[in-house]
Amino acid sequence: MSDILSYETVDLDEEKKVLKIIDQTLLPGITQILELTELEDVWEAILSLRVRGAPAIGVAAAMGMYVFAENLAAGKAGIPFGASKEAVNRAMTDPAEFISIYRQAGAYLNSARPTAVNLSWALKRMEDKLCETYKNLTGSCEAGPDQKACSESPAFKEEPAGETGQIIPGLLKVLRDEAVLIKKEDTEVCKKLGENGLTLIKKGDGILTHCNAGQLATSKYGTATAPMYLGHERGYSLKIYCDETRPLLQGARLTSYELSSAGMDVTLLCDNMVSSLMRSGKINAVFVGCDRVAANGDVANKIGTSMVALCAKHYNVPFYVFAPTSTIDMNTAAGDDIKIEQRPADEVTTLWYEKKMAPDDINVYNPAFDITDSSLISAIVTEKGIVYPSYGENLKKLFR
Amino acid sequence: MSDILSYETVDLDEEKKVLKIIDQTLLPGITQILELTELEDVWEAILSLRVRGAPAIGVAAAMGMYVFAENLAAGKAGIPFGASKEAVNRAMTDPAEFISIYRQAGAYLNSARPTAVNLSWALKRMEDKLCETYKNLTGSCEAGPDQKACSESPAFKEEPAGETGQIIPGLLKVLRDEAVLIKKEDTEVCKKLGENGLTLIKKGDGILTHCNAGQLATSKYGTATAPMYLGHERGYSLKIYCDETRPLLQGARLTSYELSSAGMDVTLLCDNMVSSLMRSGKINAVFVGCDRVAANGDVANKIGTSMVALCAKHYNVPFYVFAPTSTIDMNTAAGDDIKIEQRPADEVTTLWYEKKMAPDDINVYNPAFDITDSSLISAIVTEKGIVYPSYGENLKKLFR
Repeated sequence: MSDILSYETVDLDEEKKVLKIIDQTLLPGITQILELTELEDVWEAILSLRVRGAPAIGVAAAMGMYVFAENLAAGKAGIPFGASKEAVNRAMTDPAEFISIYRQAGAYLNSARPTAVNLSWALKRMEDKLCETYKNLTGSCEAGPDQKACSESPAFKEEPAGETGQIIPGLLKVLRDEAVLIKKEDTEVCKKLGENGLTLIKKGDGILTHCNAGQLATSKYGTATAPMYLGHERGYSLKIYCDETRPLLQGARLTSYELSSAGMDVTLLCDNMVSSLMRSGKINAVFVGCDRVAANGDVANKIGTSMVALCAKHYNVPFYVFAPTSTIDMNTAAGDDIKIEQRPADEVTTLWYEKKMAPDDINVYNPAFDITDSSLISAIVTEKGIVYPSYGENLKKLFR
Repeated sequence: MSDILSYETVDLDEEKKVLKIIDQTLLPGITQILELTELEDVWEAILSLRVRGAPAIGVAAAMGMYVFAENLAAGKAGIPFGASKEAVNRAMTDPAEFISIYRQAGAYLNSARPTAVNLSWALKRMEDKLCETYKNLTGSCEAGPDQKACSESPAFKEEPAGETGQIIPGLLKVLRDEAVLIKKEDTEVCKKLGENGLTLIKKGDGILTHCNAGQLATSKYGTATAPMYLGHERGYSLKIYCDETRPLLQGARLTSYELSSAGMDVTLLCDNMVSSLMRSGKINAVFVGCDRVAANGDVANKIGTSMVALCAKHYNVPFYVFAPTSTIDMNTAAGDDIKIEQRPADEVTTLWYEKKMAPDDINVYNPAFDITDSSLISAIVTEKGIVYPSYGENLKKLFR
């Protein structure tokens, strides 16, 4: 059990040109590393939560797109979206076609899950880098039907550069470097979240967390768990409480697993036990991750988060959201503007698709996320510092 | 699926002298009727939630004690508590010894679950009736070591009556009649709860319920579900939402099953989705049952109830508790005085003891109930009327 932390949650094998992920649907029973080369498999892995957690999804998407680009250039990419065979063949040698197909692939991958902003954030960052580089290399921006990313790019240069045959390899190198950089930055961001979060608690505290905002949701350390890992290293003797997080039990299967593997004092509870636990006085703070923060401070996170926040408010327990700035979406005004993913009924009615736990054909309400009103949030912890209310104003300052 | 309502949740086969219950741990997949004669099996059925729900536990305990008494008189009762063989043998012919052993059996059965007051309420009612009758028949109260129940009885009469050989059969008849009466009254009480509850809602309303306070928790109609059954008969077109109720999924397995069997519009959700559901505006009222109401109006009910109440308060949804007066315990001052049952860890870490859903040896917090502060309760619906705050005062009036 103790070696889960020795694996990389998401990784790129640069030599084999494959995306490697731990299949999180099999944990804690089985630790299986998937090697993905097909874009359709990356899409399925995100949809099925084989890789999950907003930051990890972003890293996987970036690396998955790089692997797709390599295969596209080599003429062996699967095309799970509507592109003509001729266009795909042209993309092997025609950089403009290459970028056009790359963009369609990005739009396809972006459809896997709607709520976490990191998926579209990472895809846009990769595409922007691609367009910028293309322009630098060619001086042109004739790259496919959607010119938006190119025309917006601040790095447009007039002078053409290099041989046409060198352009696609140059683009591939840039995509690889950017994907690797996104992962590296994620690790650094989580470390900073840990340092910032640790200032909010003291030795011996009881900390409640919901879902998995841990190492398994990021490249390393996790977001909401980063102060727990750091505190553990520094002898804080924290008592960690994990909501099991129905329907897919990420808290039971992933968070309680990774934190107890690290040697922490961990207690598991059902989601409906939070009020009882807080009433008993055992919780000093709540630390949760998030999938998207709106400009007004409303937070979309795993379904159930807002109920924890309501309990915390009632029992006067501070409620902290851990958000890398990449999850803060200043283009979304408020929580009600965030699209909430509805997931299949059988996640609730059957457990791991093995045993029916409810009557046949019962209606099911199964949103993957909920919105926590900014009024219930004590602070938003970012890598750039801790943001307190009023969020509308203070989040803006963060991006200045 | 549609025949679950044709079964009696708890029943006495007077001819065979057996307690019959539906084994609720097997629903909705398997409908199995258990025929129980041994007190130890009744105790196990209550502990393991084969029969559950405060009113149904009371009825099962009363009928189970009657069946035990028959077997005791016939010299074939199993004795799962510490009584000497000689005393048990004497109980066949010695009414005082019979009562003494009966009392020990009652104390044993009462140990199965601590929170629902109906278990001890039904056991005390049966024992009081037994002592009262014994006194009426013999003029004596020399019945075993604990004289409390006898000495408290208001029906004490001086004149002795009948032949000694007729006393035990007379006691058995009274126990049988009382157990049957407790069930009959439960049905009538639930019907009245239904009428009273129906005044609180209107046609087309969305009603949320937690756990199972349905027909499977009572003799018939249920408590919190009684207005739903009645409303359904009267064309109310209610939309019922059921929390699945971890860890044992009574909402998924029992409530959504019995209500959809009755033809209602039922939607199932995980416990952590209540805030999201209420935010969407779909819920007009919450109806829940209860295991014990304290004199100040605090309510012990299935774990998670207080979180639903916190959400209801936040979203301005009225929160109603359905309580037969038998669940109101004026001897318990407040919620903090109610003993909350802690249940085994494997209810949370494994699902139906089949598959591990969490790491080995993880600590688990698993209380069966929680306390909902009276301040979160809009009204307590009883068979005698609807009680509004302030509860300390108005519950007292109810018992005057």
